[in-house]
Amino acid sequence: MNLTSLLERWYQKVPFPFFLLKWLLISLPIGVLVGIAAAIFLWALHFATDWREGHLWIVALLPLGGFFVGLAYHYYGKEVEAGNNLIIDQIHSPKKIIRFRMAPMVLLGTVMTHLFGGSAGREGTAIQIGASISDQFTKWLKLSKRDRRIVLIAGMAAGFGAVFGTPLAGAIFGMEVFLLGKMRYDAIIPAFLAAAFGDFVCRYVSHEYLYIHHSVYNVTGDPNHIIPIDHILYAVIAGVCFGLAARLFARLTHWWGGVLRERVKYPPFRPLLGGALVAGLFGILYFGVGEDIGTRYMGLGLPTIKAAFTTQLAPYDWAGKLLFTALTLGAAYKGGEVTPLFFIGAALGNALSMILPLDMELLAAMGFVGVFAGAANTPLACAVMGLELFGTNYGVYIAIGCVVSFMFSGHAGIYSSQVIGMSKH
Amino acid sequence: MNLTSLLERWYQKVPFPFFLLKWLLISLPIGVLVGIAAAIFLWALHFATDWREGHLWIVALLPLGGFFVGLAYHYYGKEVEAGNNLIIDQIHSPKKIIRFRMAPMVLLGTVMTHLFGGSAGREGTAIQIGASISDQFTKWLKLSKRDRRIVLIAGMAAGFGAVFGTPLAGAIFGMEVFLLGKMRYDAIIPAFLAAAFGDFVCRYVSHEYLYIHHSVYNVTGDPNHIIPIDHILYAVIAGVCFGLAARLFARLTHWWGGVLRERVKYPPFRPLLGGALVAGLFGILYFGVGEDIGTRYMGLGLPTIKAAFTTQLAPYDWAGKLLFTALTLGAAYKGGEVTPLFFIGAALGNALSMILPLDMELLAAMGFVGVFAGAANTPLACAVMGLELFGTNYGVYIAIGCVVSFMFSGHAGIYSSQVIGMSKH
Repeated sequence: MNLTSLLERWYQKVPFPFFLLKWLLISLPIGVLVGIAAAIFLWALHFATDWREGHLWIVALLPLGGFFVGLAYHYYGKEVEAGNNLIIDQIHSPKKIIRFRMAPMVLLGTVMTHLFGGSAGREGTAIQIGASISDQFTKWLKLSKRDRRIVLIAGMAAGFGAVFGTPLAGAIFGMEVFLLGKMRYDAIIPAFLAAAFGDFVCRYVSHEYLYIHHSVYNVTGDPNHIIPIDHILYAVIAGVCFGLAARLFARLTHWWGGVLRERVKYPPFRPLLGGALVAGLFGILYFGVGEDIGTRYMGLGLPTIKAAFTTQLAPYDWAGKLLFTALTLGAAYKGGEVTPLFFIGAALGNALSMILPLDMELLAAMGFVGVFAGAANTPLACAVMGLELFGTNYGVYIAIGCVVSFMFSGHAGIYSSQVIGMSKH
Repeated sequence: MNLTSLLERWYQKVPFPFFLLKWLLISLPIGVLVGIAAAIFLWALHFATDWREGHLWIVALLPLGGFFVGLAYHYYGKEVEAGNNLIIDQIHSPKKIIRFRMAPMVLLGTVMTHLFGGSAGREGTAIQIGASISDQFTKWLKLSKRDRRIVLIAGMAAGFGAVFGTPLAGAIFGMEVFLLGKMRYDAIIPAFLAAAFGDFVCRYVSHEYLYIHHSVYNVTGDPNHIIPIDHILYAVIAGVCFGLAARLFARLTHWWGGVLRERVKYPPFRPLLGGALVAGLFGILYFGVGEDIGTRYMGLGLPTIKAAFTTQLAPYDWAGKLLFTALTLGAAYKGGEVTPLFFIGAALGNALSMILPLDMELLAAMGFVGVFAGAANTPLACAVMGLELFGTNYGVYIAIGCVVSFMFSGHAGIYSSQVIGMSKH
């Protein structure tokens, strides 16, 4: 008996080791490549944000920046323009390998958005980098349709886990995002491995070579705290608010995108127009109300997110960020939704601490992941992200905030290609 | 327009608030009642364990104790004897309300097992208490089939969350356990709420009235630790070992149960025979080898579980516990599998620390939840339980241990009614 047929017989009898080895060998390079790309992305964002803060006049050029990115996508990126939705579509009905150019285009496009002061996030970019890199393995390794699904999920998991430094949330997000109300476990090993590898490589490259770090949020809580029943009810009320904010955000973004698509026929003009509106609003706030509030709703908004845990923000800050982000992303600027959703949620939680008798840091933490849970319809990934970022002392509050928000955000989230696997009620 | 038709119209337009309110009102009493029952159960276990440790001669009566519990189930408990599997069956194809007597019978039966020195756990009991209490609401509230499924899941979540003090793991366990390889979200709100309520009430009653506490495990880890790639590979190797141990445990328990069912026609004689074997083995170890090792594999084994995090155990301890537990549970003694699985896993992790270059406390923590993840086919619940019990510093290792163990444990876990929703490979 030769070696091949011996292996064949082994594989028939005990397929597990082969399955594990195969996915280890595929997840490792995916994790390494996506982790490196994520580190470069984070560094570029850091650089773009710093530069903008020192040269605020560049916001006046936001419409032009959007126009050029729109031109690039119109002429070179039609196939990859659908972004996150394209990936979700391919998971549901695999057709065509995602072109590698999605990764550099979305990376550069997102950096442009942030350099010129649009309000956007990172997760869409991370997912697109992850999926377009990982899908190249489909081609090289001639993978089956089923394996391609798994590879795409692993790529998304690696991208998400690496960019936010939350590998467990990344893995669950990859498994959870494409199907609303159901989760399938066929990608569980590749998703967790790729996310772990991606997170390690991104951290290593960021710390050792690029000198940047993930944001750390100081949330303490009391480990011996027993959560009384009335607090659980307050957490439910907060969850309802987060879910409604998520619904408002998704609706406003979709509505504004629809208006622009209907009224403006030439696609690159849409970000031109949308960018003019964002830049104009910025100008009105900056010169008319105050420099601080003018800059507060641009870019990622990390300083305000951090502040939401410790100081009382303005009660309308969540709405301001929601408006700026919906206007930016609805006009087809590149970037993710999630960091603005962190902002909206943390600021909304901060505002709710004026009404609800829960700690400010707790409500900020709940909102941080809660609005995202509702908007993306990924309650478990967000609950686990809450544990990864804020520790376990507040775990019950955070999880209840996420699942209630998920229930109240409706069936149309930020990813319109998401398939409804089960009605929410 | 009268009030009913107004409410009807609201419900048609915005069903979410009604859904939330309904399940809040149902989850709250479920959580309270299950939490109280869980506290009484934990107190009784504590008492039984203490008493046995002071009166070891009672182990000689283990066969008789098992015989009487067997008699009680044979004549009064036929309908509830299938235990966990009955609940899982009812979730898949709802037929008959689970009788309330399941709760007191399994509670007393499990306390008997522990009083007489059998090796068993708590989660089966917790789940059965939870589901049989919650299913009474099906009757009282005349719930639909779909709502009954949700009520059963919420009851299991509350029982599991309360007994182990891990509400998030309890909620996910309830959603995860009945279907292998898939998760549906229709019970997500009731599961999290009931688990949170159950955990709170159980903690409150335990601390304030019964003066007992959940076990706390000292696992520290370094929050700034970046997990290198080779460590991820060691975690994979450990996960393979945990999965194989889980497979061995499930097979041995099923095999021994099958032998007894085939050879011994009168059911109450089965625990009589099985108990005689366990008591005999105990006697041989206790008088022949050493008093310490004789008592080590009885009951829950909490002291050894705690020791696994800090001191080197004997490398065969996991196998000893596995054997004693399979013999006890295969012979139809009442009790759960999970605490012995914690023991088997923590001791196996402890033993692996002699070979693998990972910390002992880390490997013990990984095994604690990892073997359980494989045996129950609930990788996400176990990963989250690991976060709840051991904090997030080791989260990636723990999650990888759980998912790899899940992959290697095969399709036949400890719950034979579990439906395979998706093949593992």
